[in-house]
Amino acid sequence: MKKKPLILVTNDDGISAPGLRKLIEIMKEIGDVVVVAPDSPQSGKGHAITLDATLYIKKLKGKSAKIEEYTCSGTPADCVKIGIKEVLKRKPDLCVSGINHGSNASINVIYSGTMSAAVEAGIEGIPAIGFSLLDYDWDANFEGLESYVKNITLNVLENGLPDGVVLNVNFPKITDSPFKGVKIARQARANWNEKFDKRINPTGKEYYWLTGVFENLDGGEDTDEYALENNYISLVPVQFDLTAHHFLQTLNSWNF
Amino acid sequence: MKKKPLILVTNDDGISAPGLRKLIEIMKEIGDVVVVAPDSPQSGKGHAITLDATLYIKKLKGKSAKIEEYTCSGTPADCVKIGIKEVLKRKPDLCVSGINHGSNASINVIYSGTMSAAVEAGIEGIPAIGFSLLDYDWDANFEGLESYVKNITLNVLENGLPDGVVLNVNFPKITDSPFKGVKIARQARANWNEKFDKRINPTGKEYYWLTGVFENLDGGEDTDEYALENNYISLVPVQFDLTAHHFLQTLNSWNF
Repeated sequence: MKKKPLILVTNDDGISAPGLRKLIEIMKEIGDVVVVAPDSPQSGKGHAITLDATLYIKKLKGKSAKIEEYTCSGTPADCVKIGIKEVLKRKPDLCVSGINHGSNASINVIYSGTMSAAVEAGIEGIPAIGFSLLDYDWDANFEGLESYVKNITLNVLENGLPDGVVLNVNFPKITDSPFKGVKIARQARANWNEKFDKRINPTGKEYYWLTGVFENLDGGEDTDEYALENNYISLVPVQFDLTAHHFLQTLNSWNF
Repeated sequence: MKKKPLILVTNDDGISAPGLRKLIEIMKEIGDVVVVAPDSPQSGKGHAITLDATLYIKKLKGKSAKIEEYTCSGTPADCVKIGIKEVLKRKPDLCVSGINHGSNASINVIYSGTMSAAVEAGIEGIPAIGFSLLDYDWDANFEGLESYVKNITLNVLENGLPDGVVLNVNFPKITDSPFKGVKIARQARANWNEKFDKRINPTGKEYYWLTGVFENLDGGEDTDEYALENNYISLVPVQFDLTAHHFLQTLNSWNF
């Protein structure tokens, strides 16, 4: 019998998020699962790591005796680092992060704790996938995406990923129409048009809440946003070599 | 007379960092400077943004009547967002971040609050540069890099940057040997080999400090690490389209 793969599961919504529970349920069918997830929500934490504070890990009594679950007091990237170095007995064969409640598509990949966990695993040389469902509701409906999550994961385990590449998978919000399938896509050029909601606190001091409106600036039909708008599951390969290689030559002509 | 450019200055080491004061001093000679910097150190905060907490801005009495200085209670990316939307009267012509006390070279670009501020400005369509000096000392010696910071900044103001690209500039630690010049480079493939320092707190609970050893895995002579090791200033163009375009075709052959 072929050895079962060791799978590290994490997320950014925290240990109790329904999206994480769903991902654990799916991964149990594929391999040996160890969970190291944040003990509190970490949305929008990007690739933050904890340099100036202490980290705690806590072993939980899992619902299944077969699955080890740990919480970590740090960020999603911390969870991956400490999971690999302190929790797991050997380097995992795969790291999956999510299923995020929200969007990691287009520019959201930059702010996403979910994707930063996957990228952190990639930096450590572990094949990794971030999953997200475009539904911000805590009680989001995750029914119907199981077979796709499983299929994508099995493809990664079978084919591997190139050095320096992880996958960013986003599911459209679940409606009565079934998904049209998986679309390989590029990251759409988009941004958030921020609006700061200014308020006065009880002591009379002004403070702000960050809010904003998402703007897709990309007309391309090969983007993740286009796929999602058309009820496809988007799959973007993500790299962490950020070099803008196309601009190197021009820079060499500048006068320094 | 040509209108002076409006320059937003920020960093991740916080408002009182000597590297920020040095950057303000240099930018004063180039344009009208407005500072919006974190009110506390934000190293390693990556591209975190504040979604679950309030933000405060405070106007400081600057040393020079000519310069407006503000602190923000958030991350470097928050500083840029709130600086542009709430503090500045118009969109700045440039955003500079730093001078960081430490390294933003190779994989550090991912964890760097300094570079995330520059990237955030880039997302908002503003030409941006992150500066860093490979000296972690608070009292680091910044003498000798002024002319390079000025020259690179003037080049950006004159030539502009392509949509979606910002610059990552790192200076080697200052020694008796003068810099050999500016080297256009790509991000080296490198990572941190983490070691968690486990300790026991006064109540008997285990906790950890994240530490690690930096490992350059890249033998290339065209990388930022190679440039810095050889006393060159490294300049890497950084993009925030993270799509691994080279892997799209292969993914299309997978069986989903």
